[in-house]
Amino acid sequence: MSNSDNLPLIRHSLAHLMAASVLELFPTAKPTIGPATDNGFYYDFDFGDHKLTEDDLKKIEKGMRKILPTWNSFEREEVSEKEAIERFDGNEYKLELIQGIVQSGDPITLYTSGAFTDLCRGGHVEDAARDIPFDGFKLDTIAGAYWRGDETKPMLTRIYGLAFKSKEALDAHLTLREEAKKRDHKKIGKEMGLFAFSELVGKGLPLMLPKGQIIKDELWNYITEKKRSLGYTFVTIPHIAKRALYEKSGHMGKYDAMMPVMTDSEGDEYVMKAMNCPHHFEIYNAEPHSYRDLPLRIAENTTVYRNEKSGELSGLTRVKNLTQDDTHHFIRRSQISSEIKMIIGLMQDIFSTFGFSDYRVQISARDESNKESYFGDDALWEESQNTLIESVKEWGVPYSVEQGEAAFYGPKIDVMVKDSIGREWQLTTVQLDFNQPLNFDMTYINEEGKKEHVVVLHAAIYGSFERFMGILIEHYAGNFPLWLAPTQISILPVASMHDDMANELQTEFNKLGFRTSMLESGDSLGKRLREVKSKKTPYYIVIGDKEVSSADGLVERTITIENRNGEKWQTTIKEAINALVEERDGRK
Amino acid sequence: MSNSDNLPLIRHSLAHLMAASVLELFPTAKPTIGPATDNGFYYDFDFGDHKLTEDDLKKIEKGMRKILPTWNSFEREEVSEKEAIERFDGNEYKLELIQGIVQSGDPITLYTSGAFTDLCRGGHVEDAARDIPFDGFKLDTIAGAYWRGDETKPMLTRIYGLAFKSKEALDAHLTLREEAKKRDHKKIGKEMGLFAFSELVGKGLPLMLPKGQIIKDELWNYITEKKRSLGYTFVTIPHIAKRALYEKSGHMGKYDAMMPVMTDSEGDEYVMKAMNCPHHFEIYNAEPHSYRDLPLRIAENTTVYRNEKSGELSGLTRVKNLTQDDTHHFIRRSQISSEIKMIIGLMQDIFSTFGFSDYRVQISARDESNKESYFGDDALWEESQNTLIESVKEWGVPYSVEQGEAAFYGPKIDVMVKDSIGREWQLTTVQLDFNQPLNFDMTYINEEGKKEHVVVLHAAIYGSFERFMGILIEHYAGNFPLWLAPTQISILPVASMHDDMANELQTEFNKLGFRTSMLESGDSLGKRLREVKSKKTPYYIVIGDKEVSSADGLVERTITIENRNGEKWQTTIKEAINALVEERDGRK
Repeated sequence: MSNSDNLPLIRHSLAHLMAASVLELFPTAKPTIGPATDNGFYYDFDFGDHKLTEDDLKKIEKGMRKILPTWNSFEREEVSEKEAIERFDGNEYKLELIQGIVQSGDPITLYTSGAFTDLCRGGHVEDAARDIPFDGFKLDTIAGAYWRGDETKPMLTRIYGLAFKSKEALDAHLTLREEAKKRDHKKIGKEMGLFAFSELVGKGLPLMLPKGQIIKDELWNYITEKKRSLGYTFVTIPHIAKRALYEKSGHMGKYDAMMPVMTDSEGDEYVMKAMNCPHHFEIYNAEPHSYRDLPLRIAENTTVYRNEKSGELSGLTRVKNLTQDDTHHFIRRSQISSEIKMIIGLMQDIFSTFGFSDYRVQISARDESNKESYFGDDALWEESQNTLIESVKEWGVPYSVEQGEAAFYGPKIDVMVKDSIGREWQLTTVQLDFNQPLNFDMTYINEEGKKEHVVVLHAAIYGSFERFMGILIEHYAGNFPLWLAPTQISILPVASMHDDMANELQTEFNKLGFRTSMLESGDSLGKRLREVKSKKTPYYIVIGDKEVSSADGLVERTITIENRNGEKWQTTIKEAINALVEERDGRK
Repeated sequence: MSNSDNLPLIRHSLAHLMAASVLELFPTAKPTIGPATDNGFYYDFDFGDHKLTEDDLKKIEKGMRKILPTWNSFEREEVSEKEAIERFDGNEYKLELIQGIVQSGDPITLYTSGAFTDLCRGGHVEDAARDIPFDGFKLDTIAGAYWRGDETKPMLTRIYGLAFKSKEALDAHLTLREEAKKRDHKKIGKEMGLFAFSELVGKGLPLMLPKGQIIKDELWNYITEKKRSLGYTFVTIPHIAKRALYEKSGHMGKYDAMMPVMTDSEGDEYVMKAMNCPHHFEIYNAEPHSYRDLPLRIAENTTVYRNEKSGELSGLTRVKNLTQDDTHHFIRRSQISSEIKMIIGLMQDIFSTFGFSDYRVQISARDESNKESYFGDDALWEESQNTLIESVKEWGVPYSVEQGEAAFYGPKIDVMVKDSIGREWQLTTVQLDFNQPLNFDMTYINEEGKKEHVVVLHAAIYGSFERFMGILIEHYAGNFPLWLAPTQISILPVASMHDDMANELQTEFNKLGFRTSMLESGDSLGKRLREVKSKKTPYYIVIGDKEVSSADGLVERTITIENRNGEKWQTTIKEAINALVEERDGRK
């Protein structure tokens, strides 16, 4: 049976193959460990005094292709501790691994292909020559890595390889990686002056600079208007609460990224919010409700704080302060399907504006073998999970159900979308919650004058503004559509005699709410054009003799508009204004 | 020399007079202490088993007026410990006070007027009969108070009195107090569903409910638009920073309302921001600046957290989370005057919308006798203080200079305004700062290509949204102008046959962005009208037969609009819409 479909097996087998090739070229090198990764494999070696070069890498890869046709099987043998020690004599790393296996009580297993034998737990293809795609792999980079990740231990040399099912898949990965590198939001964010970090403020705590704030404000206003038009009401909650609130909600102790508790001089304990639900529940409970008020949609764009490990923080996509476009929907049981449908509709409406249309859904369900770690009874869980599955089926996008991925208080939907270079991002989340309404005793008075518990839906469309902005920067490679661009139109007078018309034109655009910049005639036109282009400004207009003399009234004059792709067209100012207003307000 | 102008002396003398009257009526009562207060005086007594009544209060007050004409002096005598103990034999409270005086080493002084002698440090009018306004005082309330404020000690009876310079001043105080009580923002806020508190969230941490959020959003959008039109740029900062940021700014250790430090598992120390300046300084320093960029105005509506004592918290006016409309102006020295002028202009523009026009300014200067506790040298302080005084002089409103009230990093202006019932509130603050620019090395490149330090102005117009909302609720007594009212127009169909027109009219108003409510014809019209009026909705419109039949096209029909003051007028819907849009958009 061929294993050519099983990438982890292929990748781990390639780690063996690389080690075999390394030992042919460097007989004194000591192999240590070599696992599969998400896009290939690596192996760590002790090369002694030799410093591995790019040239060596090519030779090793060539050697792998030479050996590969001769590897038709991985022969397993189980050996005694004594024999294992003899076989790996001189390799202190393997000896240390052997001691670990002995202590664990597991059998010591060796795998041999061709002339190469390795200490290994297994996980290979059956027939390497047949199952490993000959052109689907490539040695990638060399890095340093401490033995067992411990900086007090020797530094080894790690060789990374990439491996896919075909040359085409490998090439596609390399192209995507190159493209993603160019689009890195940390690099573009710095170049465009969108956001910054400060050592004194702290890691993972971005400062949104004026230009980035423009984008954030546009995203904020857009989703707020959309939600308001659907009848969402907005609120404000503080960023802290007493520890007691999270004791009641069950987050304290269950959710491990809460910020440290603050104990004040009066002995009261406060903690920063890592989620908004308990506060919003208290808002719901601050006033009595009737069935006539439902669905009640409470919305807020507000920042939560999470105690992420510093090593896991990255740009805007992994931060400590997440500003969520959060909503809590207080509804009746009979309103679940229609409410989820409304949220999915809102999401598609919003995302189509950014050109996101390729969806995939993951439904996170309870782990059926570990029911006791979830809040609430079986019937509630079954009802809620089935409702989510039905809603997604009706929507008609691909979906999977993942056991054990649910939050402790209810199942959820995670929506994944593909960006302009085909990468998948998890954005919108909709969480169904039958449990917290009982816990917080959130009720309404029904038609018969009796109390009933509401159902709560937790939903965020963008997820967090910070992460969504990071994704958009990469999605657009900084070439934001007109409505999002920090500077929308630049005006360049050729010489100072054209300043008057340039100023009048700028005033005209500013009156219509455009964000414009004037590049005054001090520097050469060529230098100023290069500056405009480097800033990814959507449009620019050069004003010279021809423009000034083309007509008497300003808006009747003919100008040439050029966009950042180098496309130009001639038009009257009047028509230009109409076209740009339409593009901006249509969020095209 | 008459003391009739010195209210504290009058008030303390009245405490003696009240004690004298009490002892005539209740010879066994034991007087303890009786100081002056901000609006009168109190005296704490041990009445033994007697429970004081309102009727007793009247008798005591009557007795005071009977005694007053006979009190022409306060005779001072200094006595030995032994004599003092003999004179106050049987009053364990006075004996305890005497022991305290003896331990402090101060002389024991007694003051006698008429037949009444009290242990007292002094501070009386010269001639009570002449100096105390006969109709200017009034006994006010009875309260319980522990001896020396210690709940383990006996509960005494406190009698509060009010005292002013004349009957008119006393009556004015009583009227204002009555009016302020009716306007209490905590009461109105609850009645109108504007905000709420939760035990689980914590004291001093208001939850802004949907109706209150509408007001907050309107205030937010108003000031944001105004600032944007003046060229302010907006940013976002996190609500926390590393402790190191506040070590550098000097707040840590100097400012005592910082929230407790949070130490995470990696050993890093974070603290919630109690002010935004250090974060905004880091934003300034994130990019290089030229003289062409100045003035650079960085604005943000953002929440700071202050560890206020729970006993000092009150409604929205004293909270732990203050959402400031904060701005930092990075300017050159030559721009100080014009920038302060611009801020004062913005403030007057904003405040005139709320009908605030009666200003007073306090300039907070350094304490010249304690210079070492301030940051920065003499020349800087003199220059900055003089600039503030000159700017306020030019504005032309009354001002005072208060020594020792400045922040440690610079002098400031506090602007006081009077509300609709004449109470004074401190709102806008403008702080000049020559020191933090040196501390944070905030520079720009001048015309000669050389680095110079900026000057920083800290300014907030509203101060905080929470407090400003609390003040506005009381200023308007909940009768918000149209643009701020949570519900602007209510529509009441007389019977179900009028529902169609009522719905069409509501749709028409909603399209124009009005916040409307429909009071459906289930309940009687009378009941619904009472409901509208209790909610302080600015306008309501009743739709009946006459309205439906008055014309064919909706906007041509004639309706009667009634406002919350009971004023009515007849008009076509078209004209009503024009008038209401003008009132709303003009923020009248």
